Amino acid sequence: MRTQVGIIGAGPAGLLLAQMLHQRGIDAVVLEARSRDYVEGRIRAGLLEQGSVDTLTEAGVADRLHLEGLVHRGLELRFGGAAHRIDLAGLTGGKVVTIYGQQEAVKDMIAARLRAGLPLLFEVSNVAVHDIDTNRPRVSFRHDGRDQVLDCDIIAGCDGFHGICRAAIPPADLRIFDRIYPFAWLGILSRSRPMSEELIYARHDSGFALATMRSHAVSRLYLQCAPDEDPAQWSDDRIWSELRRRLGAADGELPEGPILQKGVTAMRSFVAEPMRHGRLFLAGDAAHIVPPTGAKGMNLAIADVRVLVRALDAFFAGEGGDLMDAYSATCLERIWKVQRFSWWMTQLLHRTDGEDAFEHRVRLAELDYLTGSVAARTTLAENYVGLPYAG
Amino acid sequence: MRTQVGIIGAGPAGLLLAQMLHQRGIDAVVLEARSRDYVEGRIRAGLLEQGSVDTLTEAGVADRLHLEGLVHRGLELRFGGAAHRIDLAGLTGGKVVTIYGQQEAVKDMIAARLRAGLPLLFEVSNVAVHDIDTNRPRVSFRHDGRDQVLDCDIIAGCDGFHGICRAAIPPADLRIFDRIYPFAWLGILSRSRPMSEELIYARHDSGFALATMRSHAVSRLYLQCAPDEDPAQWSDDRIWSELRRRLGAADGELPEGPILQKGVTAMRSFVAEPMRHGRLFLAGDAAHIVPPTGAKGMNLAIADVRVLVRALDAFFAGEGGDLMDAYSATCLERIWKVQRFSWWMTQLLHRTDGEDAFEHRVRLAELDYLTGSVAARTTLAENYVGLPYAG
Repeated sequence: MRTQVGIIGAGPAGLLLAQMLHQRGIDAVVLEARSRDYVEGRIRAGLLEQGSVDTLTEAGVADRLHLEGLVHRGLELRFGGAAHRIDLAGLTGGKVVTIYGQQEAVKDMIAARLRAGLPLLFEVSNVAVHDIDTNRPRVSFRHDGRDQVLDCDIIAGCDGFHGICRAAIPPADLRIFDRIYPFAWLGILSRSRPMSEELIYARHDSGFALATMRSHAVSRLYLQCAPDEDPAQWSDDRIWSELRRRLGAADGELPEGPILQKGVTAMRSFVAEPMRHGRLFLAGDAAHIVPPTGAKGMNLAIADVRVLVRALDAFFAGEGGDLMDAYSATCLERIWKVQRFSWWMTQLLHRTDGEDAFEHRVRLAELDYLTGSVAARTTLAENYVGLPYAG
Repeated sequence: MRTQVGIIGAGPAGLLLAQMLHQRGIDAVVLEARSRDYVEGRIRAGLLEQGSVDTLTEAGVADRLHLEGLVHRGLELRFGGAAHRIDLAGLTGGKVVTIYGQQEAVKDMIAARLRAGLPLLFEVSNVAVHDIDTNRPRVSFRHDGRDQVLDCDIIAGCDGFHGICRAAIPPADLRIFDRIYPFAWLGILSRSRPMSEELIYARHDSGFALATMRSHAVSRLYLQCAPDEDPAQWSDDRIWSELRRRLGAADGELPEGPILQKGVTAMRSFVAEPMRHGRLFLAGDAAHIVPPTGAKGMNLAIADVRVLVRALDAFFAGEGGDLMDAYSATCLERIWKVQRFSWWMTQLLHRTDGEDAFEHRVRLAELDYLTGSVAARTTLAENYVGLPYAG
């Protein structure tokens, strides 16, 4: 089998890349280790920057997103017993964020690809990349009981943090930046109305809490917990009472409902540099991880894909490899700013055991300054709705 | 001897307090352990916020400041081989900072006080405060070979970080917040034209550097060094060459001259809470220390004095002690924001040995974001020219 771009991974990065290449007449084959059901049911982030929505719209895969996505023009910060609204739209000249589950975007892109009859293989095993230092890289894999080889011009590693692509780059050629946080999130999905039309981020002496949503009928709620927290220790009653307390919910302000799902999310910042090795390009979680506080994971993947598509478009149009050579540096400039923002929001809103008293007060003063200064609120808002893309 | 307000310390806080009380018809006696020559020659910070200049002007001690002070409408940040101007005035609706040595402001206030024939005693020894929990606190001291007692209504502890006033408060009644930085500043005073009309703050892989000035003919220059650095290890040649390197000075950009003074300044953040115990009120360095990066030390002292004067004015006018009761909390709300800013500028611009690679990159991304975003530059500018006063 032969294609121009072999894409490993059918998450948001791989599927969007395939779709945008298709729009430009560039062939791709997408290989995914998991089943379609698994990929479509995998619950991840659900908040899209303004630019991510625009990118998905240009890619022609945003019809349902525009119908079902919840547009948010602000968010709320709660701390010290008070609530402060951050007017995202007002502070950024009208930019907004949109709540739309990552798995919904994935469903839309899978449907578009299959409808167009374009190659997307699920439940592929034994995937390995070869000859990435040459102009004829290959992907070997097993599918439908047969060992196969995909000859490519380019391989796109969109297979996530635990994927095989980053691991295929010689360790000596990669520089890893890593930060593991001493806390995690206990997340629940509940069949209940959201607490508010907008997200509520709370800093409480007992730890961070976040009230967000999947829809008008399904809430997503998080509590800061230990990295090795056992969700079984959290009865429904304990969860609701702790959420009410940390969110500073007034009587009846937090609607309760059956808890559909309960799980612990680790918190990590990670960057691998560079994001390219020979003809292998990493995009999305394969190259970088952010803690979920700023809701940037899927948005970073989309930003990478924009840069990669432009580079590959130029390459296949015979305009040479300059943009491909610039791919990693172009992406990383913005990625590091987003890493900074995600780290900043994380350390600002979480309780850190063992934090010294001076730093604790500095954090409270920062929240105080943040909510009291238009300029400071604008820095939060412009990062939250998404920094400008490169170029 | 008897007075309304016994002021311990003839630094900026004590002298300004005495002057502003005098304007309001409230008697004070200022006691200073050092000689007049010593106090007037003590080189400290030299950058006044817009509000500090306004306060000194209202206090009637700013004639020479307005003649000789250098008004700065911006500053420059240098890192990664590039220079970025922060347009302080443009970003804050016209606010500026003024370069005027602290010892010059001290000279002006001493002269004003002595000209008015008001009590200001130098070279006072054995100073101790008594009965601060009562309505008749006293200060005992030795002056001109005589042991004396000053009966007061109020005692103002303006005697700096190492003074006796904070130490007179029972330790159990104070909460201390402290951060000692793992670096210091090697500072020189040089008879040479300033490198630029405005301040230049540089972050370099070898460490922080700052080019500032005392006048058009005298430069003040700083290099990050070890806390236990021996200035004797720094020849003039080594100093100038390191300054050129860290400041990224073009050929001939940094004028050199005879080095008049050389010294190491420690870097510390410190807050004691509350700033009042009974009838003893702490102001300035007696209650808080900032690292010099944001040039906030004298400005914080002036801000404290503003709040204290209003409280004492109400008290002596028979309006009760509500403002005195609120003094500490009123000051601390702004102080913590200024502590945050000073800490932030310090960690952003200094090299920290042992800093992990992730944090290092986050700092670089922050500088990158800061210089590229109007909102972020505005947060720097509005803090640098001075946050609004309380009330």
